[in-house]
Amino acid sequence: MTTNGDPPLFYRKHVFVCLNEREEGHPRGCCLAKGAEELQGYMKAKARELGLKDVRINKSGCLDRCELGPNMVIYPDGVWYRCTTTDDIDEVLQAHLVEGRRVDRLMLKPGDDPPKAKPKVKTA
Amino acid sequence: MTTNGDPPLFYRKHVFVCLNEREEGHPRGCCLAKGAEELQGYMKAKARELGLKDVRINKSGCLDRCELGPNMVIYPDGVWYRCTTTDDIDEVLQAHLVEGRRVDRLMLKPGDDPPKAKPKVKTA
Repeated sequence: MTTNGDPPLFYRKHVFVCLNEREEGHPRGCCLAKGAEELQGYMKAKARELGLKDVRINKSGCLDRCELGPNMVIYPDGVWYRCTTTDDIDEVLQAHLVEGRRVDRLMLKPGDDPPKAKPKVKTA
Repeated sequence: MTTNGDPPLFYRKHVFVCLNEREEGHPRGCCLAKGAEELQGYMKAKARELGLKDVRINKSGCLDRCELGPNMVIYPDGVWYRCTTTDDIDEVLQAHLVEGRRVDRLMLKPGDDPPKAKPKVKTA
């Protein structure tokens, strides 16, 4: 058990890479159209190469930061990254997953929220 | 910033429900064949009804507990549940996501691991 009474984590770090697909021309775009599937596959293979057995690289549905993608979130830290190249992936793997550091230049920050829903127009 | 220097969480609780599909007859089975898609849709709609705006109910790829599914994991807690009915989902929503408690009877526990890979037979 952990100090808070929960069982130990099944994975030291659990990565969810958004692979959501939207129809072509959707104003928000989508991570899949920005190469997320290839990047997730690369990250998974590379994590195995690095021997990271206590880490899992999962696919996920829409993380709702479509405009900023390709996005991922790493738990239990709750740290979000935008990775667009395999070099970015390598950097997150080495810094965050191996060394426990952060990659500031790739992190999403407070305010990187979904666009606000348009306010409904009140009619008299 | 949080006490550890990371930005605040985008979601107070972030749920990932496994929707992985395997081919029919696969010995491990899969969460999709056990109704995971309907359960995830129900959970998402119900969370909205409950006004849980700081919670996200996501789909995920294979969480590698296929035999025990349908599975979900709730972060940042790293607590895993097996929910097979909408009653189970309601209980997790109310206890874990609203009240911050745990639903012991549905939780995966230490040892609920993927089956070990068969040892390779050494040939002389």
